[in-house]
Amino acid sequence: MSNKKRIALDMDEVIADVIPKFLDLYEAEFGQRLTTNDFRGRKIYDTPAAYKIRNHLFDKGFFRDLPLMANSQEVVRWLHDYYDIYIITAATEFKNSLEDKYEWLEEHFSFIPWQRYIFCGDKSFMKADYMIDDKASHLAKFDGKGLLFSASHNVESTGDFTRMNSWLEIKAFFEEELKKDGIVV
Amino acid sequence: MSNKKRIALDMDEVIADVIPKFLDLYEAEFGQRLTTNDFRGRKIYDTPAAYKIRNHLFDKGFFRDLPLMANSQEVVRWLHDYYDIYIITAATEFKNSLEDKYEWLEEHFSFIPWQRYIFCGDKSFMKADYMIDDKASHLAKFDGKGLLFSASHNVESTGDFTRMNSWLEIKAFFEEELKKDGIVV
Repeated sequence: MSNKKRIALDMDEVIADVIPKFLDLYEAEFGQRLTTNDFRGRKIYDTPAAYKIRNHLFDKGFFRDLPLMANSQEVVRWLHDYYDIYIITAATEFKNSLEDKYEWLEEHFSFIPWQRYIFCGDKSFMKADYMIDDKASHLAKFDGKGLLFSASHNVESTGDFTRMNSWLEIKAFFEEELKKDGIVV
Repeated sequence: MSNKKRIALDMDEVIADVIPKFLDLYEAEFGQRLTTNDFRGRKIYDTPAAYKIRNHLFDKGFFRDLPLMANSQEVVRWLHDYYDIYIITAATEFKNSLEDKYEWLEEHFSFIPWQRYIFCGDKSFMKADYMIDDKASHLAKFDGKGLLFSASHNVESTGDFTRMNSWLEIKAFFEEELKKDGIVV
């Protein structure tokens, strides 16, 4: 087994940006282009009227063409040299997401081997040193170091985690961690 | 979170029987119906001539209609009352297996919710009390109690695990475990 420390890395709203697609779907449904301030503190679909647009998560293709989160690809590529990165994504609610997510990872993160993909529901079984996720509830059940990636729905979340506002902050965080571990980068 | 102990349960050659399909594929290719004695100590395709039949694992549909391993369904149903059962299957080598396995689980083990499906490659990240698997290499990286489900390829395997030859043996094993834990069944 590898001697590297392990990072459990989420996909949606961490490396894959679902917001542009939801803004489009919302606009198509309600004729209004929201700004992120309009759904600060919640998911864009967390209102009784808008909840139906969540159903698009079940659509074949929804997850296939999501844009990359800014700087995620290059920072993950850099982290990959120093850590074993497992992609762990809550995918099993949506059967149609499985192949889409697989192909998306092959396209954008081909340096991460299929041995380190984890398509799951809850994440409470995950053994790792770090977890990067936008859901505080996953981090609450994790016994390593949790990093909360900021998203509209988690701006009010508090807990035993460190908040990260961008991939550049994540890079800076791990530069410090590597120094503590005596690894020269 | 649940107070139940957790079982990590493999699929292929544990709850899903791949052997009949491989016997058919072998016969179609080589005109000979093997018996399990013919590939004792290895996988049916672990010869230079036969290795190509392993490629059928990549076929769409391969995993969709596998028969159940004898008694697996009723014993897992029974275990489900006393344990949190996670289905953990090395699926990500085969993109086409993902939907097939998902539908197979929905058909035969509908009492296990999607929150407890884990489609992955290696399994070294798994935190559980028990793991039931036919691959000794997965159990070797597991820090709970490992149960090796007997299969042609593992008859010679040794290691820190308890061998199980059938689902009825698994039931008897967990009846004893539950007694030790003071749980009345």
